[in-house]
Amino acid sequence: MKKFVNDPKQFVPQMLQGLALANPDTLTYVPDYNLIMRKDAPRDGKVSIVQGSGSGHEPAHVMTVGKGMLDAACPGDVFSAPPMDYVYETAKLLASPAGVLLLVNNYTGDRMAFEMASELAEADGLKVKTLFIDDDVAVQDSTYTVGRRGVAGNFFVMKAVGAAAEEGADLDELIRVGEKVNSVTRTMGLALTPCTPPAKGSPLFELPEDEIEIGVGIHGEPGRRRGKLGTADEMLAEILEPVVKDLPFSSGDRVALMINGLGGTPISELYLLYGRAHQQLTDRGIEIGRSYVGEYCTSLDMAGASITLVRLDDEIERLLAAPAEIGVRIF
Amino acid sequence: MKKFVNDPKQFVPQMLQGLALANPDTLTYVPDYNLIMRKDAPRDGKVSIVQGSGSGHEPAHVMTVGKGMLDAACPGDVFSAPPMDYVYETAKLLASPAGVLLLVNNYTGDRMAFEMASELAEADGLKVKTLFIDDDVAVQDSTYTVGRRGVAGNFFVMKAVGAAAEEGADLDELIRVGEKVNSVTRTMGLALTPCTPPAKGSPLFELPEDEIEIGVGIHGEPGRRRGKLGTADEMLAEILEPVVKDLPFSSGDRVALMINGLGGTPISELYLLYGRAHQQLTDRGIEIGRSYVGEYCTSLDMAGASITLVRLDDEIERLLAAPAEIGVRIF
Repeated sequence: MKKFVNDPKQFVPQMLQGLALANPDTLTYVPDYNLIMRKDAPRDGKVSIVQGSGSGHEPAHVMTVGKGMLDAACPGDVFSAPPMDYVYETAKLLASPAGVLLLVNNYTGDRMAFEMASELAEADGLKVKTLFIDDDVAVQDSTYTVGRRGVAGNFFVMKAVGAAAEEGADLDELIRVGEKVNSVTRTMGLALTPCTPPAKGSPLFELPEDEIEIGVGIHGEPGRRRGKLGTADEMLAEILEPVVKDLPFSSGDRVALMINGLGGTPISELYLLYGRAHQQLTDRGIEIGRSYVGEYCTSLDMAGASITLVRLDDEIERLLAAPAEIGVRIF
Repeated sequence: MKKFVNDPKQFVPQMLQGLALANPDTLTYVPDYNLIMRKDAPRDGKVSIVQGSGSGHEPAHVMTVGKGMLDAACPGDVFSAPPMDYVYETAKLLASPAGVLLLVNNYTGDRMAFEMASELAEADGLKVKTLFIDDDVAVQDSTYTVGRRGVAGNFFVMKAVGAAAEEGADLDELIRVGEKVNSVTRTMGLALTPCTPPAKGSPLFELPEDEIEIGVGIHGEPGRRRGKLGTADEMLAEILEPVVKDLPFSSGDRVALMINGLGGTPISELYLLYGRAHQQLTDRGIEIGRSYVGEYCTSLDMAGASITLVRLDDEIERLLAAPAEIGVRIF
């Protein structure tokens, strides 16, 4: 396993320590509950927004804590849901009079942890609501999921509710906004290589040199089928077509287009894919209103990419364009 | 080769097309000279800043074109210096009455292309100066270099002169600032895996499963020696110590600390390394004034990382903190 890891059990805590040390003015790491939170959260008039999931998908979600984005993220260990009691303690720490919104990608383990934590918090008298994200069109049910999986499109739900919360929207309004964005967001990905979890020390699955996994999950779960390694254009077609057909997106639509890297694919290849996708969508009469290229929701060191489309309207576009500040920046 | 590539000869142009399509309001791609430039460059009162090198190091340099950073980047093919006439044409396109500053990482091929282009441009009556960057402490001379190599620390030179140019500094002043930043910037990296250039289709060198290349160059050039794969802390020590000793950095210094990923290492591991480096430097009495974690200067899909330290003073810190806007963003 060729990775920068000390004790694999300390992989997530040591990553979070690094994140907090790099952002001493804005972020706090709370080791007891393994969470990253804004130093200025909770704030009285604002709903706190918390997202959680297994680790290994960075920057999701611990690296999108900041103004106009998340107030806190409570990650589990690599590819494991956070413990229910950590989610509960996080909700208590972030409780504001306006309430707490919990954002959860649709996986059975995460649903269970967040739903139980939410019940406990409500029993304490806290105002808590939970919103599930399920943007992956690849498969209906999957290894760890009843219903569709939540993948890179979760970024758009988080960004939109984060902006609305800064504007003062209440908990019900945030649920409306989040469900609306989720309902017009579609994603599909493919893997060129498997990923290697630090605690396992070897690849999570096998993928021959000339094969790809079409519709792969962000934990390496199987997608629709194995395909042959092809050109960038051929492989892009395998994921672009199902995403367009699913909503469907049609001529006249204005969309946000995201090319998301799965962790091991360089940004040069992501921009190449972006350009090809942009041109193909434009040829179909679909207008690209906003573009996103980079790593948003990864699968450790997996080589591969996903494509996400969001159908924009004035409200969604305004929320996506609203200012935000996070610690992860390159300049 | 598991990559998103169509025709390898079109790898760089298709990446640049994608970059321009993702930033339609701010960037222009000029296919004739394979360059990316700001739509608002050149500007009359401002020195234009141009950086060039082989491709394969993205985001350097084509993805750091923007306000407060570069006015243009002229990349070559993967790991190849840009053609001399492309650099010359770029200098002419970017020529402002205030002049053009060419930033060049110290490699023999790049030096030759930029020095010849600079002479041609001067013969045309243009005001052009060239600044060479050589921050890599690993080796004195190398495969493609007489003298030290320019690696990820080039970011700091670029950011500082970019900010100074926005403030109206003239060409001589920019040379002073750039040389000053270069003189207090030190970098060393290590590779866990080789990288695979699209046109070659196979790894550029061999690295056994239990070995690392300490002091690797960003084109896969040999460093100081091969070492054994160890823990994150053990491997970090192999590069942190030589960087600290070289300037040297000492107790009482205030520094910028960068952990740069080489392309295939996930950001989770980079933050883990950042936290360990931050603590070790703090233990030595070195204060971290600014932190940078992510990919700045990569080597295609190579797994690995480099560490850069910059000794800060008020002037350098102010220039590094100055606002900048580039197309590459994740939110």
